[in-house]
Amino acid sequence: MIAETLSVGTELLLGQIVDTDAAFIARALAEIGVGMVFRGTVGDNHKRLREAIRLSISRCDLLITCGGLGPTMDDLTKEAVAEELGVPLIPDPEQLARLRDIAAGREDIPDSFFGQALAPQAPHGYAIPNPNGTAPGVWIEAAGKIAICLPGPPNELIPMMQESVVPQIAARLGGGRSVIRSRVLHIVGIGESRIEEMTRDLLLSENPTVAPLAGLAECKLRITARAGSEQEAERLIAPREAAIRARLGDAVYGVDGETLEYAVITLLKSKKLTAATAESCTGGLIAQRLTSVAGASDAFGTGIVAYANSAKTALLGVPEALLAAHGAVSAECAAAMAEGARAASGADIAVSVTGVAGPSGGSEEKPVGLVYISVAARAHPTTAQRHLFHGSRADINGRAATNAIAAVRTLLLRL
Amino acid sequence: MIAETLSVGTELLLGQIVDTDAAFIARALAEIGVGMVFRGTVGDNHKRLREAIRLSISRCDLLITCGGLGPTMDDLTKEAVAEELGVPLIPDPEQLARLRDIAAGREDIPDSFFGQALAPQAPHGYAIPNPNGTAPGVWIEAAGKIAICLPGPPNELIPMMQESVVPQIAARLGGGRSVIRSRVLHIVGIGESRIEEMTRDLLLSENPTVAPLAGLAECKLRITARAGSEQEAERLIAPREAAIRARLGDAVYGVDGETLEYAVITLLKSKKLTAATAESCTGGLIAQRLTSVAGASDAFGTGIVAYANSAKTALLGVPEALLAAHGAVSAECAAAMAEGARAASGADIAVSVTGVAGPSGGSEEKPVGLVYISVAARAHPTTAQRHLFHGSRADINGRAATNAIAAVRTLLLRL
Repeated sequence: MIAETLSVGTELLLGQIVDTDAAFIARALAEIGVGMVFRGTVGDNHKRLREAIRLSISRCDLLITCGGLGPTMDDLTKEAVAEELGVPLIPDPEQLARLRDIAAGREDIPDSFFGQALAPQAPHGYAIPNPNGTAPGVWIEAAGKIAICLPGPPNELIPMMQESVVPQIAARLGGGRSVIRSRVLHIVGIGESRIEEMTRDLLLSENPTVAPLAGLAECKLRITARAGSEQEAERLIAPREAAIRARLGDAVYGVDGETLEYAVITLLKSKKLTAATAESCTGGLIAQRLTSVAGASDAFGTGIVAYANSAKTALLGVPEALLAAHGAVSAECAAAMAEGARAASGADIAVSVTGVAGPSGGSEEKPVGLVYISVAARAHPTTAQRHLFHGSRADINGRAATNAIAAVRTLLLRL
Repeated sequence: MIAETLSVGTELLLGQIVDTDAAFIARALAEIGVGMVFRGTVGDNHKRLREAIRLSISRCDLLITCGGLGPTMDDLTKEAVAEELGVPLIPDPEQLARLRDIAAGREDIPDSFFGQALAPQAPHGYAIPNPNGTAPGVWIEAAGKIAICLPGPPNELIPMMQESVVPQIAARLGGGRSVIRSRVLHIVGIGESRIEEMTRDLLLSENPTVAPLAGLAECKLRITARAGSEQEAERLIAPREAAIRARLGDAVYGVDGETLEYAVITLLKSKKLTAATAESCTGGLIAQRLTSVAGASDAFGTGIVAYANSAKTALLGVPEALLAAHGAVSAECAAAMAEGARAASGADIAVSVTGVAGPSGGSEEKPVGLVYISVAARAHPTTAQRHLFHGSRADINGRAATNAIAAVRTLLLRL
């Protein structure tokens, strides 16, 4: 099966957004052994959209479009694909009911809103549910070709691909196919060059391949195997994963979708401990990352964003004299913040961050990027790490948050 | 002049990298008034590359390719383009000398390395210097078509576009050239369908065009003008922007890169007021978004993440009896949280969020997506809005945060 994607949207041709959908779809198809030889992009213009769809359908077996499914006049994709394949669209009762539910509480919903419920009639296809948006996708089939139309926003497209499209295509492919399986190992606390040095021989292997991927203050190694079945691919991946883990030890904190915050929340829960946060420059980012983990409430109850010095004193009990003597960006202040957060929350562990995220506010003594991180816990001396991060305000805060969460993990592994 | 880009590389079709080059080139061309109607992507396969080049050249006046210019067997683009245009390539003496300099210090340089010096002979084109890599680009011209081949790495392509390609194309367009300028208006508090209804006649206009773009709990309208100069484009955009603002009023909160949190921090500063946050389900996201604005410290000093009920009581003074009677996800709790945050922080305004972000924890009475938002301010009655958001945990929290920040803005506009 040869696939093609067609990304639809004038904003793509104007370069106002980068097309991440096409890369996501390509990766998802590669994983189930579906190859691509062309990819196209076209604007919100009916004639050229039809032309692009016709060309793609002539070259491939499976066309996936992304974008142009919403309720506005610019949204033409579904209709254009259905016209090219000669398949009529009719309102899908389930989708129509859902759109009516969504519209119920709102005023002045135009008729065009309900056009989103149009879908091909069986056996020519069906609507693909979109739990995260109003526009469902469609699966249209005619003349030996499959066309799938998905909405453009990645938060809508990705779950629809994972939950509906990929399983349906895989089912259609049946036996005889080859699969590509990947596992990503997440690593924190060792730099990319050092990881490469420690795993150089493994990076040269063929099947599975091992490739390093750099992230913000963390790294990944992706192991990819090609085999006749998932089980066979897994048998190729497992010993390679074991070899990497043997070399990198505790620095490997998770696999695939497991985030560092997921690893920490899971560790906290397994040890029946709780954590709290005290944040200055990161402004709530650490608390937000910890609470992004479903079920975090068992392990995290309190976060304090003490952006102003007065908040550090009032909510965290940092002495005014300490602030006067050392300043808010200091090891002393970081330690006092962590201890204050532990006292205020009653948590077993508290982590604090204070620093200069920039772009202004830096000085020769305390430059932009200077960050102190401290962890406080019962029966452990409270110490602070000093970091000098580079990059934008968002980068510095991102690196600070990752290092703070990693510091909690390091302490938890020792407890 | 109509342009097309062709991105070359199997890694693109496997989804291993996201194509940022195509968006960059599109933006650069739009700025000098060169429009695009199609964009293509193809792998490192000579036959299909030729096919894609032929198709693009038949549809456009200017083809820009990116990728496939290096020294390896996979790098076929320049040769394929030259073959399609019937232009022979010969070694460019300057490029050859540069490659010999680069190779001088190294061992085992293969002959193919020097193939990178091949370029069309005048008057059919020339080599485009690449100060940041080994492979120069080429400008090839024949039969009334221009084809430009650039290397794929963005750190090589971007300076070559800026320093050589864009000025050369602009010079070719001469006096008669046109520029494309866009302004994006950011809107909150009105849905996409309703915005379209309120601006339908404007959405049909030709120059400038107006196009809606959907976001998470907010919308955008993009005004795009084509004119002979920047000043002229601005004269076309300004009245259209004024017309939209007249219809949508305060719902327009910013232009281009201005975020909702930037608008709120700016309003707070201009009114010399401060805000504080009290977050349950959003877990610090609102504080993080407010502090992502450089200089936020003048307007934001304290955020409290009260994820556990005990934190709501201890840090925000929410009465235990209130929690027992109404639960943490209630209008009463939201209001008590906002008032508690104002008391604890001394801020002029406090905003609170409490809700069920899911995926678990919902009930019939309090389903996943139920969120209460409250704003407290001196001499204003503290009320709470009830919302029912859909989507993933991250979507629900994202929508809740946007609505909470928008609620602060609404209050500020009334003060």
